Amino acid sequence: MRLSKMFAPTLKEVPSDAEAVSHQLMLRGGMIRKLAAGIYDYLPLGLRSIRKVEQIVREEMNRAGAQELLLPAVQPAELWQESGRWALYGPELQRLRDRHNREFCLGPTHEEVITDLVRRDVRSYRELPLNLYQIQTKFRDEVRPRFGLMRAREFTMKDAYSFDVDDAGANASYEAMRQAYHRIFTRCGLRFREVEADSGNIGGSFSAEFMVLADTGEDAIVYCDSCGYAANLEKAEIASPPDAPFPGALQPMKRVPTPNQRTIEEVSAFLQVQPRDLIKTLVFVADGRPVVALVTGDHEVNAIKLQRLLKANVLELADPATIERVTGAPVGFAGPQGLKVEHLLADYSLRGRGNLAAGGNEVDVHVTGVNLGRDFTPTQFADLRQAEVGELCPRCTGGKLLQQRGIEVGHVFKLGVKYSKTMRCTFLDEAGVEKEMIMGCYGIGIGRTAAAAVEQNHDDNGMIWPLPLAPYHAVIVPIGKTDGPEYQAALKLHDELEARGVEVVLDDRDERPGVKFKDADLIGFPLRLTLGKKALDQGAVELKRRAAAEFELVPLGEIVAKVDAIVHEAKNVTTC
Amino acid sequence: MRLSKMFAPTLKEVPSDAEAVSHQLMLRGGMIRKLAAGIYDYLPLGLRSIRKVEQIVREEMNRAGAQELLLPAVQPAELWQESGRWALYGPELQRLRDRHNREFCLGPTHEEVITDLVRRDVRSYRELPLNLYQIQTKFRDEVRPRFGLMRAREFTMKDAYSFDVDDAGANASYEAMRQAYHRIFTRCGLRFREVEADSGNIGGSFSAEFMVLADTGEDAIVYCDSCGYAANLEKAEIASPPDAPFPGALQPMKRVPTPNQRTIEEVSAFLQVQPRDLIKTLVFVADGRPVVALVTGDHEVNAIKLQRLLKANVLELADPATIERVTGAPVGFAGPQGLKVEHLLADYSLRGRGNLAAGGNEVDVHVTGVNLGRDFTPTQFADLRQAEVGELCPRCTGGKLLQQRGIEVGHVFKLGVKYSKTMRCTFLDEAGVEKEMIMGCYGIGIGRTAAAAVEQNHDDNGMIWPLPLAPYHAVIVPIGKTDGPEYQAALKLHDELEARGVEVVLDDRDERPGVKFKDADLIGFPLRLTLGKKALDQGAVELKRRAAAEFELVPLGEIVAKVDAIVHEAKNVTTC
Repeated sequence: MRLSKMFAPTLKEVPSDAEAVSHQLMLRGGMIRKLAAGIYDYLPLGLRSIRKVEQIVREEMNRAGAQELLLPAVQPAELWQESGRWALYGPELQRLRDRHNREFCLGPTHEEVITDLVRRDVRSYRELPLNLYQIQTKFRDEVRPRFGLMRAREFTMKDAYSFDVDDAGANASYEAMRQAYHRIFTRCGLRFREVEADSGNIGGSFSAEFMVLADTGEDAIVYCDSCGYAANLEKAEIASPPDAPFPGALQPMKRVPTPNQRTIEEVSAFLQVQPRDLIKTLVFVADGRPVVALVTGDHEVNAIKLQRLLKANVLELADPATIERVTGAPVGFAGPQGLKVEHLLADYSLRGRGNLAAGGNEVDVHVTGVNLGRDFTPTQFADLRQAEVGELCPRCTGGKLLQQRGIEVGHVFKLGVKYSKTMRCTFLDEAGVEKEMIMGCYGIGIGRTAAAAVEQNHDDNGMIWPLPLAPYHAVIVPIGKTDGPEYQAALKLHDELEARGVEVVLDDRDERPGVKFKDADLIGFPLRLTLGKKALDQGAVELKRRAAAEFELVPLGEIVAKVDAIVHEAKNVTTC
Repeated sequence: MRLSKMFAPTLKEVPSDAEAVSHQLMLRGGMIRKLAAGIYDYLPLGLRSIRKVEQIVREEMNRAGAQELLLPAVQPAELWQESGRWALYGPELQRLRDRHNREFCLGPTHEEVITDLVRRDVRSYRELPLNLYQIQTKFRDEVRPRFGLMRAREFTMKDAYSFDVDDAGANASYEAMRQAYHRIFTRCGLRFREVEADSGNIGGSFSAEFMVLADTGEDAIVYCDSCGYAANLEKAEIASPPDAPFPGALQPMKRVPTPNQRTIEEVSAFLQVQPRDLIKTLVFVADGRPVVALVTGDHEVNAIKLQRLLKANVLELADPATIERVTGAPVGFAGPQGLKVEHLLADYSLRGRGNLAAGGNEVDVHVTGVNLGRDFTPTQFADLRQAEVGELCPRCTGGKLLQQRGIEVGHVFKLGVKYSKTMRCTFLDEAGVEKEMIMGCYGIGIGRTAAAAVEQNHDDNGMIWPLPLAPYHAVIVPIGKTDGPEYQAALKLHDELEARGVEVVLDDRDERPGVKFKDADLIGFPLRLTLGKKALDQGAVELKRRAAAEFELVPLGEIVAKVDAIVHEAKNVTTC
């Protein structure tokens, strides 16, 4: 391919409305253009990288026994009404009416459509298990689309759905997908991590996210420095400390006037105690009923964990009136002693502690010498706070949690019977009994994976594509006049590399070397082959890896074999 | 691939709402399923055939120098308002509003989006020519979607757009696409014909359609039995006869009472003259003004030709009041003599004719002995009627027109400056002068090509896929118990063929041979390899081509090479 013929318009300026580095560089490198907010034209270079992701995904899905199909983008409202999501999904669901005034939506996901297909065409246990996937355009009407392909409104996803006769089968399908995902992101040449995740509004029994590691990532991840444990920060478990009694002598509980001292900082300064020796007493309302959560003053309650523990549909912090009704005091003076609530939940941070300070349940009053068992008894100890760097791993002995940032590119869910129950997706088992299929669903953001590759791999000069996702493997840059010997040599090299299956671009533009090098760095071709007079006189070509600072001189007679070897080595990476 | 694991649900019954044979067979063969009117799930077998069409299209587009990109399905209204099509396009254009109440549509075509992209990023003649294409989902809200993939609402198209600096360049781009289209449909293994076509509502200077020939096709095509001329029936030209005077003696014009005789049939019976000796006089209204078209009584006026001749935006038959005002008589008694209209257009069928009958422009009266030049003088002779089988070819001497039916699968247009003018898609030429780009656009219906392949190739038992578009090249059918020697041999053969790159399905289902043969015929695998005891005892396998009535016995030691040769021969067909 000759760059002079290619539609790859590079930009010198950083586009003003692009915040994320991948967004900036993909615009500047002529890979994408914005058509409307969150809606992008994929230009030839951008499409090539996206297609590379797709092809790796496709090969590994097929290898895992999944079958590719293609479901429509436009979906009838009836199916979403049947699953109940027509009402639950907010304005992110792009709705429309056809000429006959029938309601449809642009599919942001395809659980309803695939469940409808399978329930119509699968009747017997003999036809199961099935794992069906597609690579399809999705639409989500994001309130604030941004970051280019990282959070677009129209985007490409691979979504797979498994159907099994029982839990053991569903778990095996889930496991096969987990392993396929490891192979996929490894083959993409990305540094990534599988983390335990929340299942979000799709529901289901368990799920994991695949995160491409990048300092610019939106998600915080904690991981153990010793075992394999990793989790989304918001869901990371906290090790349960041993249930030992407080080892010291119990002080008497003592009432202390604390005029206008409400916050942890104020009270701890006023009473001259550490925040970790204070009990933070928070009143929530869970599905209309007050609950109290306790944690030591050096931590925060994680509302997601609390909500999951209570299995509450709605959880919010109580308003001042409710707080006063529950504690007898205005905001800032709550303590656990004497509270009459159904749930008095204590975080693990309170286990084995004693002689603590707390609110007095009376205006301008706190108490000290508060002790578990004697002055209050939690209804339950639980994991209620957010994990922090440095604490003990919940899964192993001695491991400590560290944090890094990531970009979610894949998600595997065990759905269970959520859709097969509401939509009656059933089969007859060996005994002729009708049963609901056990489902799983498995997504990969295709464009997002390409963008994440850039977030992870770039420098001040541009993108540094991992070879398996690069739009082309190599660029050849001849120096000198377009009819000179450097161009002749470059053209010959181009043809030889192409014949070997190396994807190569010849920069045959009549431009200065500086412009060519800048564009090569910006687009991020993994290999650059420069043909200048000096090297050619020595019978050599300059080979520079985009990720390296230095180039090496390679004899002309060896360059084709060398590039071929680099390319095929990078493409053959797998983990299995 | 094993059929027992494949999601390929075949149906015994013909689905009640499927009219077209491709629709029926693709449903029955488990290739597609209907989700909503005109909206289909592509199942694994159907998707494979569609992907084969896509890949052939992609390879030939790339070979012709076009570059692949991908444009969004959701397009902002502003661009369509700029081109003027937001108002012109009817309810086929699926419109929608996003959460911010901004208007969008689902693209039925992408002229606006591509023109917008190119005008933003191309500035100089040095960056031209460009030919950009995509394979993308389109949406047209058809009033009555039917025939399965032949006229769907959501469907896959390849659309390409060329941008050139001048007419010569645009013609070369058009020609390159024409040639690519010939290669594409040849490689698909289809019998097809390129025909001259109308440019429809996309506009432009000239265009051609590519028709897959099939008796069930919606379109009528006429073609010359001698030269290469072919055209859509509605646009087929008619040879202009020589402008010779009427050879006979002119009779006097004579008034004949014809009470209540209005139609050609009535008048010809009453006067005892042949319809071809009558003048049919039709009053139309073109953009508000009356025009009269004349044709002999054995023909019909073709309104499309008349409209194009008049360059009228709107053309309709006149209402009775207008007819009475123009001719002085009620409907049924119009004649050309004495009419005062700007356009009195005579079809070529009137050339050299004389002594004809016509309406008398008076109620219940006709006239005979009407003669051109003496009694009336047309403002113009023109091609105004529809071509018919058997008439002379307009392009060669001695050729006669024949008719066949076809399915439009591709269309090439020379657009000219239609979009580049309204949307200001310009470049600077060598002299620094700003000029409009000359555009072309080129479409192929991907799913429609697959469906047309079935319309052209099927029998009572099912589909007969041309090998290049078949979902799999071959099916292996072992006869006998699933643990018997036939299955062992079948599995070995399956693995050997797969290793050679043959796409093969092993029918390992525990079904009777009759069921397996019926499904193999229905799905239409080009080759069927049957392993039964009798043949195996002779060290042979039965090879049957789907299109053939008989099978042949091939020694086991030769079958892999033989199948491989058949497959690779069929895949390597090209015309260039």
